Amino acid sequence: MDTRDGGVPPDLRGVQEAVDAWIGQFEEGYWPPHVNLARLTEEVGELARLINHRFGPKAKKPEEDDQELGEELADILFVLVAIANEQGIDLTEAFDGVLTKYRRRDSDRWERKADSPGGAED
Amino acid sequence: MDTRDGGVPPDLRGVQEAVDAWIGQFEEGYWPPHVNLARLTEEVGELARLINHRFGPKAKKPEEDDQELGEELADILFVLVAIANEQGIDLTEAFDGVLTKYRRRDSDRWERKADSPGGAED
Amino acid sequence: MDTRDGGVPPDLRGVQEAVDAWIGQFEEGYWPPHVNLARLTEEVGELARLINHRFGPKAKKPEEDDQELGEELADILFVLVAIANEQGIDLTEAFDGVLTKYRRRDSDRWERKADSPGGAED
Amino acid sequence: MDTRDGGVPPDLRGVQEAVDAWIGQFEEGYWPPHVNLARLTEEVGELARLINHRFGPKAKKPEEDDQELGEELADILFVLVAIANEQGIDLTEAFDGVLTKYRRRDSDRWERKADSPGGAED
Repeated sequence: MDTRDGGVPPDLRGVQEAVDAWIGQFEEGYWPPHVNLARLTEEVGELARLINHRFGPKAKKPEEDDQELGEELADILFVLVAIANEQGIDLTEAFDGVLTKYRRRDSDRWERKADSPGGAED
Repeated sequence: MDTRDGGVPPDLRGVQEAVDAWIGQFEEGYWPPHVNLARLTEEVGELARLINHRFGPKAKKPEEDDQELGEELADILFVLVAIANEQGIDLTEAFDGVLTKYRRRDSDRWERKADSPGGAED
Repeated sequence: MDTRDGGVPPDLRGVQEAVDAWIGQFEEGYWPPHVNLARLTEEVGELARLINHRFGPKAKKPEEDDQELGEELADILFVLVAIANEQGIDLTEAFDGVLTKYRRRDSDRWERKADSPGGAED
Repeated sequence: MDTRDGGVPPDLRGVQEAVDAWIGQFEEGYWPPHVNLARLTEEVGELARLINHRFGPKAKKPEEDDQELGEELADILFVLVAIANEQGIDLTEAFDGVLTKYRRRDSDRWERKADSPGGAED
């Protein structure tokens, strides 16, 4: 993880544990992958509806607060984490792997800022 | 946040900062919501392909490790966080809100385990 | 169906039969709904990738022909029709129902053209 | 198009014209690709919700008629056709191309029925 800007390193354990604590209360437990995927598709659809509503051709509510958008994103995150938990996947590790992949694959894909530390190093 | 099981409380700041550090290096910066949404749709599609491949009617590779699945989930997470960052949304707060919403709305939706602390308290 | 402009009335029987003829050749037959849905999600993801590629921030190929876009749309249509067939749904009837629904619900939702016949009739 | 079973050949002109007649009434006209895609994502999400509701872990309504499912499929079809129309794509031709592609690519992918005419010919 690149923490050159002094950021907090990514840690998704707490999020995975929170989802597990919630789901673990119920007899049903985790859903199988296809059912979770359908739920994810449903939640992404709700985000799409909201994005068209706020940023589409007939957008009318620029003053609306961000609460609803945040809620849709968090709903998606919940299902995503449920899929990871059900499959025994460590998201912190997976996310780190993706950052590393992007660093290798895309470092020259976009125009780097002149003052980016990576400009010289990568 | 319910930490009765001694779990780490959800904290997504590090993830949001990691995405911001990566995208912040480039002149292009964040994409607008519709473009990010299309990217999210693309990544969810890749997860769907993988889930059908591993758990669908012709699934053939139970022995395959979970690396690819973790990578797809993390790709989705990356775009999700990019949307939140571009919109100035605090995902930790939004995720906490969703957990609270679930606690209120769904606590009687599923059959609670006999030994669940929430069984008596909620 | 409104054929006031002399158009061909919607008829999706041929499309449903073509998909049925194709799938009917194989022992596997139709997939169950969740598997078909995952396939639909995958195909919509491929359309999303293409739309970002052609119309996104870094779009580079305005001269590219429409063949690939048509293929993605037709791939989605194929899965959509497979879901309808598997569930015994008559798409011609369902599509007619949706046109009727739109006519009732949305006829005043958008600004009607001055010369639209519906402007006076509906 | 394979009409060996006496089926109606696929013809999507009427469907494209019906969508064009509907949208053509309004000043707004067609939406741009990203907005249409978001709408498609939203509609696929509604189908996903319904599929989980009818065929998921807690499915409760086997007796429910197919009307709602047909409506969701037709909603998706409407947006799909709107994208094709906006881009000037002939869906009949594109669908024919996909059937041809499947015939070439997948004819040996699945187990063919013993009595399938294609078993000997293809």
